[in-house]
Amino acid sequence: MKDIQSLRDDRRINIRKVGVKTISYPVTVLDRARRVQKTIATVNMYVSLPHRFKGTHMSRFIEILNRFHGEINLRSFHLILQEMKEHLAAEAAHMEIEFPYFLQKDSSPGSIGTERYQCRMHGTLQEADDLVLEVTVPVFAPSRAGSQGGLPRSSGRWGTVKVAVRFNHFIWIEDLIALVEEGIGAGAGPAGSVESITRNLGMIFNGHPAISWFSIVVENLADGYSTFAVLESEG
Amino acid sequence: MKDIQSLRDDRRINIRKVGVKTISYPVTVLDRARRVQKTIATVNMYVSLPHRFKGTHMSRFIEILNRFHGEINLRSFHLILQEMKEHLAAEAAHMEIEFPYFLQKDSSPGSIGTERYQCRMHGTLQEADDLVLEVTVPVFAPSRAGSQGGLPRSSGRWGTVKVAVRFNHFIWIEDLIALVEEGIGAGAGPAGSVESITRNLGMIFNGHPAISWFSIVVENLADGYSTFAVLESEG
Amino acid sequence: MKDIQSLRDDRRINIRKVGVKTISYPVTVLDRARRVQKTIATVNMYVSLPHRFKGTHMSRFIEILNRFHGEINLRSFHLILQEMKEHLAAEAAHMEIEFPYFLQKDSSPGSIGTERYQCRMHGTLQEADDLVLEVTVPVFAPSRAGSQGGLPRSSGRWGTVKVAVRFNHFIWIEDLIALVEEGIGAGAGPAGSVESITRNLGMIFNGHPAISWFSIVVENLADGYSTFAVLESEG
Amino acid sequence: MKDIQSLRDDRRINIRKVGVKTISYPVTVLDRARRVQKTIATVNMYVSLPHRFKGTHMSRFIEILNRFHGEINLRSFHLILQEMKEHLAAEAAHMEIEFPYFLQKDSSPGSIGTERYQCRMHGTLQEADDLVLEVTVPVFAPSRAGSQGGLPRSSGRWGTVKVAVRFNHFIWIEDLIALVEEGIGAGAGPAGSVESITRNLGMIFNGHPAISWFSIVVENLADGYSTFAVLESEG
Repeated sequence: MKDIQSLRDDRRINIRKVGVKTISYPVTVLDRARRVQKTIATVNMYVSLPHRFKGTHMSRFIEILNRFHGEINLRSFHLILQEMKEHLAAEAAHMEIEFPYFLQKDSSPGSIGTERYQCRMHGTLQEADDLVLEVTVPVFAPSRAGSQGGLPRSSGRWGTVKVAVRFNHFIWIEDLIALVEEGIGAGAGPAGSVESITRNLGMIFNGHPAISWFSIVVENLADGYSTFAVLESEG
Repeated sequence: MKDIQSLRDDRRINIRKVGVKTISYPVTVLDRARRVQKTIATVNMYVSLPHRFKGTHMSRFIEILNRFHGEINLRSFHLILQEMKEHLAAEAAHMEIEFPYFLQKDSSPGSIGTERYQCRMHGTLQEADDLVLEVTVPVFAPSRAGSQGGLPRSSGRWGTVKVAVRFNHFIWIEDLIALVEEGIGAGAGPAGSVESITRNLGMIFNGHPAISWFSIVVENLADGYSTFAVLESEG
Repeated sequence: MKDIQSLRDDRRINIRKVGVKTISYPVTVLDRARRVQKTIATVNMYVSLPHRFKGTHMSRFIEILNRFHGEINLRSFHLILQEMKEHLAAEAAHMEIEFPYFLQKDSSPGSIGTERYQCRMHGTLQEADDLVLEVTVPVFAPSRAGSQGGLPRSSGRWGTVKVAVRFNHFIWIEDLIALVEEGIGAGAGPAGSVESITRNLGMIFNGHPAISWFSIVVENLADGYSTFAVLESEG
Repeated sequence: MKDIQSLRDDRRINIRKVGVKTISYPVTVLDRARRVQKTIATVNMYVSLPHRFKGTHMSRFIEILNRFHGEINLRSFHLILQEMKEHLAAEAAHMEIEFPYFLQKDSSPGSIGTERYQCRMHGTLQEADDLVLEVTVPVFAPSRAGSQGGLPRSSGRWGTVKVAVRFNHFIWIEDLIALVEEGIGAGAGPAGSVESITRNLGMIFNGHPAISWFSIVVENLADGYSTFAVLESEG
């Protein structure tokens, strides 16, 4: 088999990406109401490699990450990607961070008051920066029968809405969540099918001046499995 | 520190249990309608040790398990525990197996027809056999608005009922599931609170001649967390 | 906002994909040694939609799945995709199934004898069929210090190799696993870095006549996170 | 069946415990080096009920939790349990919180410098307080072949040590982790079997003046499953 190999173009079997992943790391992210919020992220960092490449120093990823002390914002994201691209002589640099984000809500009696939203940022630097911000919003079925022992009772978990956006100018995580909850019809609850909710959200995001691209996935936990619909802008 | 150690009774720091766990293993379990059902179990096997003990042969657990070719029933459960207790010179032998069990249902159009229930058996042999059978039944919130695109649509996942029983004489997994679904009020759906459903199930299990002991946990996925109630017979 | 919306091209906010996902379903897959193997799959079925579309009957997915009674092979995969594409008037039909596959190995004393491999098939039918078969092979660090209580002891979990292939003619899951384990150097164990193992596997897959495309991800569980390398053929 | 029921002692089917669980909640815990550490906890709160009980106000749990703003220490733990016991007229109150705890380590080049440990506190108030502190310490197999691309490379994940303690006087999470890592033989790595490591840790904990009770579970990820040993003090 070796002889056959040597006749082939061995550029075809070069490594495309190397990096580190699933680093659990305390970070601070921007919070409109409180300036910053401390949370815990899972971080992936990797580079796309040119064809001729002589081995990566995996420790570099960690060194660059540590230099920024977990402060995550648009500027640090760009600088980390830039350092990765330069120090690792890469064609492109990638960083993904995923973290729970807690939002203080007007607390009705018995509500936790603090809602949790899973967020993800995926940044790439090739020629230019590219950043995608993603938020997953849990959706609950409204109660039919009022409250349970004083708790504003839901009749269970309806499903989730996951929205990813690219933006023209800065958008707060809070605003993105508000747009989604407006589209779901918070309060009235999820009246429709996955398709009608997806279309409704599409209308809202399509009309938003800050958003240059978006993707929406609506998922309903039906009896034992899920139904889902996906919509993506062409922007 | 060593000197202090030697003054103490070192029986206090003897190992209590050793074993193997999270073995993924194909098994066949009893199925009323089809005689047997092939499924995939996660198996834990361990022994409680006497105070003076000279080291366990971990390979023995695997050897004993393999000898039964994954055939799980009351008799094989007893024999496996007996072999463990003898060959490992143990005070007590334990085996836990957890597996999804699929139940064929009358299929309304659009339903999968095959419901999945997570099951667990925990057997112990000390002086006598002790076997606990546990089933987790998913509960869905009934639809308010009819069907979605032909699917009998739920308004989401309400929560779960987990029931564990000891029995006087053999009980089918199917019968245990039927008892739970009767108690939840299948069809009418989960009308009440976690407490009222728990009490309702308690009435049913308390009156059942085959069941000598039971434990019930009802959990409702409320807005972002769960509420739950636990009931255990005194039997 | 409505007025602004109506001026835009509303084709930009049409739904791209709809379907059902995370269906837990008993299936039979092909097994070289035993002809078929019963296992439990997680199934996703969805369609890509044309721009003008009047609503999907989600129940159709389930009906089509049920008609094949969980028998998964190249022919049934094609027929299911074809029915989905036709009955749902779709541009493309997709089915993903993921399942554990158990392989009987020569059992050294104390070994379970039955190795578990997570597998995934992703089929698409647009103009022509496209099928990707993926296998994840766990990698264990070889023991330095011999055996533990009779068990052939590893010094822990080194990581995983995930390989996905498209093929020119049928390839058994068994053969794909054997190719990977040959590349890792089963027995001698993972001697190298994620990069050297990835390159080694790339050489093997690049030379294989049945394989028309492949992707390899090697992941090493380092201290608290992972390092990884990715290689993809250009085929 | 109703008639049979009424003949039985219906105290046998009273609810034993009610509460809320899996609340995701930002908390601050004590940190020796930095005074406090912000992290994210999963919180369960429940009460054991007397036989005659007229319904729980689930909202009370949340109200009590919110009143302490997530500040977790010995004093707040006691106060929360006390409020739960009083306001819910309970026989006993329970709170479990589980959270990742990050510990700054001397950073060798290429190390993340920040190690993550999963922690759990389980407090009960019946007549007196009872508090159990649990830490899970990941164990890595030492490298045989030096470093990988500058990273101090392990040969994979060996397993975990989970230690739970009751204490006579306050013990820092840092000190508990240090005791475990000393017992594993940090640096030299896990040389022994699960049994020898468990015994070694037992010796260390048995001699510690601050610790009044302990339980140790050592788990080794062998080839495809785990072997484990459990030791519990008689204290």
